[in-house]
Amino acid sequence: MLEKLKQEVYEANMMLPEYGLVTFTWGNVSAIDRETNLVVIKPSGVEYNKLKAVDMVVLDLDGNVVEGDLNPSSDTPTHLELYRQFKNIKGIVHTHSPWATIWAQSGKSINAYGTTHADYFYGPIPCTRKMTPEEIQSEYELNTGKVIVETFGGSNPDHMPGVLVNSHGPFTWGTDAKNAVHNAVVLEEIAKMAYYTESLGKTTPMQPELLDKHFLRKHGANAYYGQGKHNK
Amino acid sequence: MLEKLKQEVYEANMMLPEYGLVTFTWGNVSAIDRETNLVVIKPSGVEYNKLKAVDMVVLDLDGNVVEGDLNPSSDTPTHLELYRQFKNIKGIVHTHSPWATIWAQSGKSINAYGTTHADYFYGPIPCTRKMTPEEIQSEYELNTGKVIVETFGGSNPDHMPGVLVNSHGPFTWGTDAKNAVHNAVVLEEIAKMAYYTESLGKTTPMQPELLDKHFLRKHGANAYYGQGKHNK
Amino acid sequence: MLEKLKQEVYEANMMLPEYGLVTFTWGNVSAIDRETNLVVIKPSGVEYNKLKAVDMVVLDLDGNVVEGDLNPSSDTPTHLELYRQFKNIKGIVHTHSPWATIWAQSGKSINAYGTTHADYFYGPIPCTRKMTPEEIQSEYELNTGKVIVETFGGSNPDHMPGVLVNSHGPFTWGTDAKNAVHNAVVLEEIAKMAYYTESLGKTTPMQPELLDKHFLRKHGANAYYGQGKHNK
Amino acid sequence: MLEKLKQEVYEANMMLPEYGLVTFTWGNVSAIDRETNLVVIKPSGVEYNKLKAVDMVVLDLDGNVVEGDLNPSSDTPTHLELYRQFKNIKGIVHTHSPWATIWAQSGKSINAYGTTHADYFYGPIPCTRKMTPEEIQSEYELNTGKVIVETFGGSNPDHMPGVLVNSHGPFTWGTDAKNAVHNAVVLEEIAKMAYYTESLGKTTPMQPELLDKHFLRKHGANAYYGQGKHNK
Repeated sequence: MLEKLKQEVYEANMMLPEYGLVTFTWGNVSAIDRETNLVVIKPSGVEYNKLKAVDMVVLDLDGNVVEGDLNPSSDTPTHLELYRQFKNIKGIVHTHSPWATIWAQSGKSINAYGTTHADYFYGPIPCTRKMTPEEIQSEYELNTGKVIVETFGGSNPDHMPGVLVNSHGPFTWGTDAKNAVHNAVVLEEIAKMAYYTESLGKTTPMQPELLDKHFLRKHGANAYYGQGKHNK
Repeated sequence: MLEKLKQEVYEANMMLPEYGLVTFTWGNVSAIDRETNLVVIKPSGVEYNKLKAVDMVVLDLDGNVVEGDLNPSSDTPTHLELYRQFKNIKGIVHTHSPWATIWAQSGKSINAYGTTHADYFYGPIPCTRKMTPEEIQSEYELNTGKVIVETFGGSNPDHMPGVLVNSHGPFTWGTDAKNAVHNAVVLEEIAKMAYYTESLGKTTPMQPELLDKHFLRKHGANAYYGQGKHNK
Repeated sequence: MLEKLKQEVYEANMMLPEYGLVTFTWGNVSAIDRETNLVVIKPSGVEYNKLKAVDMVVLDLDGNVVEGDLNPSSDTPTHLELYRQFKNIKGIVHTHSPWATIWAQSGKSINAYGTTHADYFYGPIPCTRKMTPEEIQSEYELNTGKVIVETFGGSNPDHMPGVLVNSHGPFTWGTDAKNAVHNAVVLEEIAKMAYYTESLGKTTPMQPELLDKHFLRKHGANAYYGQGKHNK
Repeated sequence: MLEKLKQEVYEANMMLPEYGLVTFTWGNVSAIDRETNLVVIKPSGVEYNKLKAVDMVVLDLDGNVVEGDLNPSSDTPTHLELYRQFKNIKGIVHTHSPWATIWAQSGKSINAYGTTHADYFYGPIPCTRKMTPEEIQSEYELNTGKVIVETFGGSNPDHMPGVLVNSHGPFTWGTDAKNAVHNAVVLEEIAKMAYYTESLGKTTPMQPELLDKHFLRKHGANAYYGQGKHNK
């Protein structure tokens, strides 16, 4: 079932080592079929050079395995919570990519310092609060998803396709699995440049007018970047 | 028309990922034929691995598309303004290369700290002022060109083949498209080394005599570097 | 003798340049056969691109060469001391990988700042004390091993598969030669991220509950990461 | 003439881009035949991917071109001065490799912080004083050599196979052209690690006993590293 989506999720997973976002097995990509509400995700702890499309695990939104012989990624409950709460997103990526991870480890949001950021993320990229001992000790992966949703507090996840989980690392999402990987690559580059920008002494964000201009040049009704009217 | 120049601009665009200056589609190269005043530029938002020489767009200096089925780069008005005002330059590059971009994001010029810098850039590489909300909201890309020209204030762009656009990233230029890419690679290397040099506590620029020696050893009437009398 | 182990140690040594952990010959891997108490180790100063499995040197735990035409690594006495004192470990790696080495050179332990660290190392990765002039001038390599053992002071080396030797570089170990290389790769990544995390102003370690959660999710009786019950 | 040495110098030059030490043409390697006192050096400004062994230029120690159709490297007078004054060295490398160059640009010597440094360089790697306007304006490249020699002040260049030229970049040397490149690679790695070590707050050099131990373990009469008695 969902062979096409499994192939897509497989290919998106393989993009993680290709773009230098993962060491060993430190990452996973999933996608959802919004018609059937079935989620396809990487199996847990399998090395990328041994991964095959057929290994992808299919689950329903309650976490029941519908198809697949391997255990799903241990981060699956986080993915499912995000799919349940962020209704438009169709692909999710989790990595420990180093530049995004250092911001997550420091517990800091990433300010928007330039147009590269503004082209994709409409404001500072938030970092979640620390989880309580209770949240960590029981249903930890589910609670990781819940604290992400709490961080957004109703603001639009389509305008902010990523988050930093405190003391952990980034999650990104998008319109499909590969778009979520695209945003993971962008986040890593932005995180790197924000680090060095602050090291040069800059700590005030860019002008809001410039943030608006670049985000809305590429997203929304009046976008004019690229070859079509509406570009992602 | 201009098939040879389109091939050159195509090849120069393909040098951007080769030298690690771009992620995804974050860059563009153009060139001008000074006899016909026609400009050849990369189309907007096309991935590098799908780009072909025939995709290059030809425009006149007023921005009218003369040939090409795709939309030109959204940064085209910036390129055109630079070709109109900087009369000698024949190729322009824009990227979000990370080291140059962090200086642009910090709003700081890059001091000349060593001979690598002096071999190519005759003094500090300037950063433009922030644009006003009005300049951002209307004719933003044209105004980006205008603020670059304002920053030079009549000083010679042939002696300073690049600039940092505040909160955005670098533009470089040169005697043709590939020379402009060459200068983009040099700027990235210089920007990196200047960052680390300042981190080591050095903030005063190099001696003016050494700056003169190295710039004039490679440029101008008495150049003696390389195999010919006048070397770029 | 021990042809299979020699092949394993050879392959593990070749992983060092593959993962970017060594420049020139700056590293070595060994393994022990716990049944015969024989150790297989890389020869001294041989370039990786000329190394062959047959070049591996076999020694007993007292340092007597049992098989091999080449001198064993000059660090052999350190490896032997670790095999004598840390009874469970079966593979050891020494490199001068840059990120781990800068912590060793600074004489500082690496705090646990995030889950990447907690997945492998159960607390701060210790740095040894400086050696005395006497320890350096006589039996230096043996004393290097002794000061590592002293640093652990009886705590469990299976929960902390690596150490920083003051003013020198890292040693890691594991359940076999390749697992020790795996831990060397992880240490390098952790060391890099800890450097940048501290640069962002974070100096307090992660919550102990989160450290427990991640270490015990992958190690110990109740591990649930990966495809089997007990995963390394 | 000197076809074997030309081939060696050609191969050593080609190692510079291979090891990531040069961008474009920013580097050169030479060697000397101490029997005839003839020097073989890279031609000026030739791109590495077009370089051939036959392009190498042969000069005597007074700088007269003995063989070769191309101009020798513009840095030739510096090389010649070093060959005249440092009697044992037989190969010289100059690059603008970034980590060594940032120390040169900052005007600081590189302290010995660990055994990687001590294995090759017997103490802090010196940085030359700034040159006077007169030294820069007349016979600049020769004076660059003279200020290097002045910096050594009679101390042994065989124990310190490299130097940082203020506001410029590194020169290294060795027992032949490839050994000089080897030392250039080591210097770059050491310069990087020293930068990060100081960033971690360490500014006092390593213990002199440990410096002695490592340098003398690899160099001099009682060396025991590697497969022979005397190893470079």
